[in-house]
Amino acid sequence: MNSTTPLAVGDHPHIRIDEGLDLDCGVHLAPIDVAYCTYGTLSARRDNAILICHAFTGDQYVAEQHPLTGKPGWWSSMVGPGKPIDTDRFFVICSNVLGGCMGTTGPRSVRTDSDGDGQELWGTAFPPITIRDMVRAQYKLVRALGIDRLFAVIGGSMGGMQVLEWTVTYPHMMLAAMPIATAPFHSAQNIAFNEVGRQAIIADPDWLAGRYWQAGVVPARGLAVARMMAHITYLSEEALTRKFGRRVRRGPNQGSAPEGPVSLFGDIFEVESYLRYQGSSFVRRFDANSYLTITRAMDWFDIAADHDGEMRAAFIGTPVRFCVVSFSSDWLFPTSSARVLLRALNQAAANVSFVEIETDKGHDAFLLEEPGFDRTVRGFLCGVAEHAGLN
Amino acid sequence: MNSTTPLAVGDHPHIRIDEGLDLDCGVHLAPIDVAYCTYGTLSARRDNAILICHAFTGDQYVAEQHPLTGKPGWWSSMVGPGKPIDTDRFFVICSNVLGGCMGTTGPRSVRTDSDGDGQELWGTAFPPITIRDMVRAQYKLVRALGIDRLFAVIGGSMGGMQVLEWTVTYPHMMLAAMPIATAPFHSAQNIAFNEVGRQAIIADPDWLAGRYWQAGVVPARGLAVARMMAHITYLSEEALTRKFGRRVRRGPNQGSAPEGPVSLFGDIFEVESYLRYQGSSFVRRFDANSYLTITRAMDWFDIAADHDGEMRAAFIGTPVRFCVVSFSSDWLFPTSSARVLLRALNQAAANVSFVEIETDKGHDAFLLEEPGFDRTVRGFLCGVAEHAGLN
Repeated sequence: MNSTTPLAVGDHPHIRIDEGLDLDCGVHLAPIDVAYCTYGTLSARRDNAILICHAFTGDQYVAEQHPLTGKPGWWSSMVGPGKPIDTDRFFVICSNVLGGCMGTTGPRSVRTDSDGDGQELWGTAFPPITIRDMVRAQYKLVRALGIDRLFAVIGGSMGGMQVLEWTVTYPHMMLAAMPIATAPFHSAQNIAFNEVGRQAIIADPDWLAGRYWQAGVVPARGLAVARMMAHITYLSEEALTRKFGRRVRRGPNQGSAPEGPVSLFGDIFEVESYLRYQGSSFVRRFDANSYLTITRAMDWFDIAADHDGEMRAAFIGTPVRFCVVSFSSDWLFPTSSARVLLRALNQAAANVSFVEIETDKGHDAFLLEEPGFDRTVRGFLCGVAEHAGLN
Repeated sequence: MNSTTPLAVGDHPHIRIDEGLDLDCGVHLAPIDVAYCTYGTLSARRDNAILICHAFTGDQYVAEQHPLTGKPGWWSSMVGPGKPIDTDRFFVICSNVLGGCMGTTGPRSVRTDSDGDGQELWGTAFPPITIRDMVRAQYKLVRALGIDRLFAVIGGSMGGMQVLEWTVTYPHMMLAAMPIATAPFHSAQNIAFNEVGRQAIIADPDWLAGRYWQAGVVPARGLAVARMMAHITYLSEEALTRKFGRRVRRGPNQGSAPEGPVSLFGDIFEVESYLRYQGSSFVRRFDANSYLTITRAMDWFDIAADHDGEMRAAFIGTPVRFCVVSFSSDWLFPTSSARVLLRALNQAAANVSFVEIETDKGHDAFLLEEPGFDRTVRGFLCGVAEHAGLN
C-alpha cells in the first residue's frame, strides 16, 4: 500500500447490522456496518435526537477533528454546545452513508457474503445503491440506538436528498425535516457533471477496473480531476472572482502574463493552484469506487419517479414540519429546484416554511458560516421544539 | 499512427509567412503557415471583406463541408449567399488560429527553426501564445490578401476575444466589430474550467509529456474528459433539461432505474451517452497540445491588463462601430461580462450597440439557428454598409 491508504474500515466506531438490507436493486446485502458519531445526550424520553445526513463527500465527523485530515468537523460551526444545532439540548447522530468509505459498508469493504472467502474487497462488484438504501441503513442505526422517533432530520446537498427520502419512506419517524441546498431529483446538468467525474476516474489506468486496492495503487489523477471539476460547481462565479479573480501565483520564471517565455504548465493563476490542492488533498481521504457508487445513487434520485411521476403524491398526508432552505448563488441546486419541491409540498398541503439565504458563496454556503442561515436553523428547531413541548 | 490521426498539416489551403511573428512571450516564430478559407468575391475596391474569428475548437471551415468530420461548416446557417453574412455581397475570410491544429502553425507542426532538423514536431515546446498573437497572424494574412481595411471583424466566444483584440491592436483596420458571447477578460471560473481540462489531458499516460504523436498514440481518454466537461459549460441547464431531462437510454439488462441489478457503468441516462459521444468524436478532430496551448491563451486574455488595468483606455478614440451580442442563458460568458465591456466602451464614448438575445440554448446559441440573432447580425451589417456607402 502507499501513502494515500486511508484508515482501515474497523477504525471508525460503528455498529454491525447482521440482518443487513434489502437493496432497491434486488440484492440482499448482509451484514452491513454503519459507522457513526454522536454528540450530546439522548434524553430520558428519547425525544431529542437529530439525525444529520452528510453530503456526497462528507462523513460522520460533523463536529470533531477528522481522523484523516486533522481538520475540524465539517459542520463545527453549526453543531455543538450553544450552536444552532445545540448539543446541550439535542442528541445529534450522523452516520457515514452506505457506499461510503469512512467505515460504513461500501466498495472498499471486505466482502463477507457466501461466495467470497472473506478476504476479497467489493470494488465495482458492490451492488448499485440508491439514496433510499442509504436511508434504510440510517433507519436501522436509529432503531438500534433505541429511538422510535427523531426530533428532526437535517442535511444539505446529497444530505438533503436523504432528508427528503426520510420524509417519504418513514414519514412518522420524525417531527421535522430540513432539506438544505438540494432538489427533489437530479437534473440533466447534475447528471452530466457526475458523469464527467466518473469518466475521469475510469480513464485513469490506475483504476484497474476497480481493483486498485489489491494492486496497491489508487487512481489519484483521475479522482483529482473529478474533484477539481466538482469543486467548481460548489462555488459561485462571484465567490471564485472574490477569492481569486485573475491573481497570479508568482513562481520562479513566472511573470504575471506571458512576458518572457513561461512554463506552459506551471501554476500561473491562483485559482489553478487552489483547485490542484483541492484535487490532491481529496485523494488522500476519499475512495474512487465510492465516488462512482455514490454519484450514481445521486443521479437516480427522483422523488416523483416512485409515485408515478407525481411529486405531490409522495407528500400527501405527511405529518412532517418542513423547512426548505436554498442559497441565492447556488447554481448546482438552485432556488428554482427548491421551488419545484415547494410546489409539490404545497399541493400536498404540507406544513412548510421556506428560506432563501442571500449569499454570493454558492452551493458550499451551507457548510460555511452564514449568519442568516444559522439563525434559520436555530429558529426552526426552537419553533418545532416549542410546538412539540420539548423541554 | 492510429485511426485518430487527423489530416496532415499541408492538406489545408494556407499561406506561408516567411517573416513570421514576434510573439508576446518574446519568441520570434518563423516561418508560420496560416490556413484559411474564403467565401464570396473581393470587390474591386477591396472594401467588402469580413474576417470571421473562430471559437476555441472551431476552425476555418465556416461554410463548407468539414474535411475531417464531413459535417457542414460550423456557421453554415450564418454565412452564405443570402444568409445574414451574405457572401453575394461580402468577401468572407476565416483562418485557423495560431496554435491550432487545422493547418496553421501550432504544437503539431513541424519545427523548422534553426535548432531543429526539420523533422521534429513542436509539441509542448511550442511557445506560449496569446490572443494578440493569434490576431497578429490574422493581420498578416489579411494584408497578404491585399486588404488595407476590413469591413468587419466578427466572432463568438474566443472568436469574440479576437474581435476585441483586433479593435485594440489594429483599430484602423476595420469599420465594424461584432464581439459575440464573449468577455473582455477570462474570469476565475473560466480559468478554473480550462485548468480542469488541461489536468485531464496531462493525467492521461498517453499524453507522454506532449510527445504522443511521435509514439503513435493520442491522449484520447484525457482529451475526451476535457471535452465532456467543456461541453456542459456550452449548454444551459434549461437546454440540457429540454434535450435530455432524466430520460434513460435502454440497453440490454438496463431498466429505467435500479430495478434488478444494473451495470454501474453502462449508459443509463441519455445525457451521459450524448456527452460520451461528444468526447469521443472530438478526439478525432482536435489535438491535445493545441487544447493546452489555446486554453492558456484564453486564460491570459485581459484587455484591461495591457492598459494599466483601465479597460476604457483600450478603446479611447476608437473609430470602430461595435455591436456587442450576448445570450440570456449563457453562463460561460454571461450578459454580465458583456456589460463590463459595454461600460468600458461607453466610458470611451465609442459607437456601440448592444443586443441580448433571449434564448434558453446557453453559450452554444451563437452557433445555432436563432432568428433574433440572425436578424441582429444582418441588420448591423446592413446598417454599417449603408453608413459607409458600400454598394
